[in-house]
Amino acid sequence: MPELRKDLVRDAWVVIAKGRALKPNDFPINKNGIQFSGSTQVCPFCIGNEEHTPPEITAYRAEDSLPNSPNWDIRTIPNKYSAFNLQEELIVANNGLNSSCTGVGQHEVIVETPEHGIELHEFTVDRIRLVFKMFKERYIALANDNRIKYIQIYKNRGIFAGASLEHSHSQILALPMVPQVNKGLLKYFQQESSCLICDMIEQEILTNERVIYKGEEFIIICPYAPRFSYEVWIVPIKHSQHFGHISDSQLKELAIICKKMLETIIACLDNPSYNIVINSAPVNNGEEEGYHWFMEINPRLIITAGVEVATGIYMNPVAPELATDLFKEYFASLR
Amino acid sequence: MPELRKDLVRDAWVVIAKGRALKPNDFPINKNGIQFSGSTQVCPFCIGNEEHTPPEITAYRAEDSLPNSPNWDIRTIPNKYSAFNLQEELIVANNGLNSSCTGVGQHEVIVETPEHGIELHEFTVDRIRLVFKMFKERYIALANDNRIKYIQIYKNRGIFAGASLEHSHSQILALPMVPQVNKGLLKYFQQESSCLICDMIEQEILTNERVIYKGEEFIIICPYAPRFSYEVWIVPIKHSQHFGHISDSQLKELAIICKKMLETIIACLDNPSYNIVINSAPVNNGEEEGYHWFMEINPRLIITAGVEVATGIYMNPVAPELATDLFKEYFASLR
Repeated sequence: MPELRKDLVRDAWVVIAKGRALKPNDFPINKNGIQFSGSTQVCPFCIGNEEHTPPEITAYRAEDSLPNSPNWDIRTIPNKYSAFNLQEELIVANNGLNSSCTGVGQHEVIVETPEHGIELHEFTVDRIRLVFKMFKERYIALANDNRIKYIQIYKNRGIFAGASLEHSHSQILALPMVPQVNKGLLKYFQQESSCLICDMIEQEILTNERVIYKGEEFIIICPYAPRFSYEVWIVPIKHSQHFGHISDSQLKELAIICKKMLETIIACLDNPSYNIVINSAPVNNGEEEGYHWFMEINPRLIITAGVEVATGIYMNPVAPELATDLFKEYFASLR
Repeated sequence: MPELRKDLVRDAWVVIAKGRALKPNDFPINKNGIQFSGSTQVCPFCIGNEEHTPPEITAYRAEDSLPNSPNWDIRTIPNKYSAFNLQEELIVANNGLNSSCTGVGQHEVIVETPEHGIELHEFTVDRIRLVFKMFKERYIALANDNRIKYIQIYKNRGIFAGASLEHSHSQILALPMVPQVNKGLLKYFQQESSCLICDMIEQEILTNERVIYKGEEFIIICPYAPRFSYEVWIVPIKHSQHFGHISDSQLKELAIICKKMLETIIACLDNPSYNIVINSAPVNNGEEEGYHWFMEINPRLIITAGVEVATGIYMNPVAPELATDLFKEYFASLR
């Protein structure tokens, strides 16, 4: 049974799969380089292979079709290797210095297309909109369980972004605790009684050094202090804490500009691996003020080294102002 | 000129190389996989190629030999791509929400051997001891500059640990600020008036579930909540805040057990990439109590994915108790 363990040195949680001891050949990295773990096997996400996944949670599918049959468009299933389970009872164990708790939560996979090999940036705008709509529905459903304190939506695309399967998919992780990673938003709100992201948008529009695009609902920027080279943020202009509150018109604009931004990244950076990350407010913990949801796209061009592992300080060899210049022109050239 | 920029969302610093815009082909990861960036060029760390590096800072070399000539054993040079410089004046710039400061600090490379292709675990114990002695001397020298607040010693071995050159080397980064990553040590000390690492050693010896080896001066454990699969800590048993305080007898024992532990990792995990990280107390900031230096060895078997990037919560598929069992037997079998 997996468990969450407290790392007292870093003051952070780690998810440990108790009882498993993967051997070198079980990892995607090996002597012969790196490859998708399932590359020689049946793809569990392809249409017709529904029996290779756990039973689906929900799907957009033909009206008269049965769950777990073919004829679906987008399919949400439990992550087969999930460390989290909502059927679990919350058990906190303390043993001297060691604290652990059971993985009360949920880890879902959204299979974005029945078709193997077509990628998010190649989808129609309408399919991308439906993927985001599925994210929204799952966010709302998971936030309804008050044991859930944080919902992380993310995508690993490509081997250097940590993807283990090639077939286009995203993931949602519903956690029983709030990760500390975006705590700067809360700190700023407590000090300034103002939303950091709202204030940042205002300043970025004014200085116009890092703005790739400004639409009705969203602004696309390269942030001032990016951890990753060519990191991009897509931010709703109107203050909004939860991704789950995204409106229909926002869903539509997000799909259009996300497709264009991904096309830009794929073209300008020669088809890199990337992560998409949706940062949002905690849920069910009463500390949601000061948060403002936004999407990050992080190209993975460099392997994090000892310095990042040790200090948490990222070394980024590309100034975001130069990344903006590169992306802005290409983005504007797209129809 | 590089600069440190404050990431307000994460409440952390990022090092940005202003003025550079690396293109896809400048990164080690590309469409054809991944390779050492300098693999087709002259190795600047090989004996005889001293003119390919900046002038050396110090070296263990034949007594009558000149700096930057051959006849050296271990050689410390500035990192050619350093974002840090002690000749720099500390300039803090605030522009609305954006804060930056100049990179007052130093980034050094310790070339551990004149010979290309021989790796740390293949060195004689005496050479390993001399490498650690060089670390100690550089630590002390850098700590003497009171603008330096933290000294990070680390090693990237192999492409999946972020190494850009193959020739065996380590790095020392002297920073003008204290990274927040090990803040749990300070928090514990403030709450308990006791050293977390000392208390942890006591408990680990008692429970004996995660102890690989216990010597006179050091204990080797797999930590209770490791971020990385098969992560190992080598910890001085006697309380000691700074790596710079390491004694001669400790240097000797550390060299012996570090060689054996690396041989164990190389053998049991099929020659993985790894980082070595030396965690130590801040310097010159008056907040050094509660810290206790220790060495981490982190095999890099998995690429960090969206969930780690987004939440900082690591997913580790290998329980440290099982890693301990694997390593303990092999380690004990070595002479």
